Amino acid sequence: MSEPITACILIIGNEILSGRTKDVNLGYLSEELTKLGITVREARVIPDIAKTIVETVKYASGTFDYVFTTGGIGPTHDDITSECVARALGRDLIQNPEAVAILEDHYEEGQLNAARLRMANTPKGAILIENPISKAPGYQIDNVFIMAGVPRIAKAMFENLKDRLEGGEPVQSLTISTNLGEGIVAAKLGKIQQDHSDLEIGSYPYFRNGKAGVSLVIRGTNQRRIDACSVNIKEMIASLDGNIILSS
Amino acid sequence: MSEPITACILIIGNEILSGRTKDVNLGYLSEELTKLGITVREARVIPDIAKTIVETVKYASGTFDYVFTTGGIGPTHDDITSECVARALGRDLIQNPEAVAILEDHYEEGQLNAARLRMANTPKGAILIENPISKAPGYQIDNVFIMAGVPRIAKAMFENLKDRLEGGEPVQSLTISTNLGEGIVAAKLGKIQQDHSDLEIGSYPYFRNGKAGVSLVIRGTNQRRIDACSVNIKEMIASLDGNIILSS
Repeated sequence: MSEPITACILIIGNEILSGRTKDVNLGYLSEELTKLGITVREARVIPDIAKTIVETVKYASGTFDYVFTTGGIGPTHDDITSECVARALGRDLIQNPEAVAILEDHYEEGQLNAARLRMANTPKGAILIENPISKAPGYQIDNVFIMAGVPRIAKAMFENLKDRLEGGEPVQSLTISTNLGEGIVAAKLGKIQQDHSDLEIGSYPYFRNGKAGVSLVIRGTNQRRIDACSVNIKEMIASLDGNIILSS
Repeated sequence: MSEPITACILIIGNEILSGRTKDVNLGYLSEELTKLGITVREARVIPDIAKTIVETVKYASGTFDYVFTTGGIGPTHDDITSECVARALGRDLIQNPEAVAILEDHYEEGQLNAARLRMANTPKGAILIENPISKAPGYQIDNVFIMAGVPRIAKAMFENLKDRLEGGEPVQSLTISTNLGEGIVAAKLGKIQQDHSDLEIGSYPYFRNGKAGVSLVIRGTNQRRIDACSVNIKEMIASLDGNIILSS
């Protein structure tokens, strides 16, 4: 198995940490990156504080193959992501001519004021990411992808950048659920995990329609190995007199 | 204004980073902590990797007033939060007699197996947090609060621990929305923020029912100052020929 390709997601904004806005970008990006065979190793939610953004972007860019940020690229005083990313990566912040052209094209005569023009500021060398919704673009600089915080814009930007990503071996997953308690399967499941150290077996208890159960999720890059593991798990459930109530 | 009381939230679990499970604990905890006057300064989502958990808990416990973790305290092989927290804080991991008593009381004769007994392991000195749903308790050790990942259990545990928290000055917020574009209000809003440096003014564009607008959120601990700021913001909107379409 080759080395996994790794990513870090940075959600930038006080409104998430105050609970005012419920983030949905993390779940979306995690799921999409996983589909591409990219392993999200960490995510951080950080406030609109320049020092924190600079240090976090520097750390993430130096540690992971890819970094994805959402938030802080609008026209107002609390939008400081671009200047912080430039500082983190040791680049000058410039008025990006291509971004200016997009904004000039979008706004009517006299509407492209100084605040809106700030949205054309990028670190020098940035490659723009198209924003089909409100036009002000995201961008890529080195291994860092800068996106808007508004979920439908973040989603559209990710769709427009994902061809630039080098995916890893796609991770397959298989879920087997049972009515058995997590504590009933735990010992045997731990043994199965030991026997299949190339796979990752997760155990997630749930309550649905008043019934408790557990979903066992096998993840890995080799489908034959996953299938072999699933046979062991089904045998284990049968040996403990449990029902396989869902298998996908 | 006194120093804010700070918190960090750690969401532990591969299932969040793979996108399989969409986290809701972060939004819930952020909102509840904010109500208590506690400022959430950072949140991290980290995988079930011992080294990462140990280092992150050590960092967070030493940096913030409070740390809240969710996930990784069940009976299976991937539940490693307690042993990692003990290592991070330099405590022995013990079988907590009070937790054992709760589990013995809950499970029928013969059902409290070795795997389930692992849920009674806590760092030495831990103070339990009641779990009214599935009984296996959470706990507090030093300034770190360990909770389950299942949202309704995490919620119940937080309800049962929050009397232990020392809140700060409660943060009030006031939201004024307008049909004006963010780029239209940006310059004047930046000036208002400068004039009210004791307050935090956030600007959040939105799309609702096909209409675009922006919500301006004033946050602070002094209601009179918030009210004064809101007058300035309303005057600004009027001067730009905008509508105040919502104010709460």
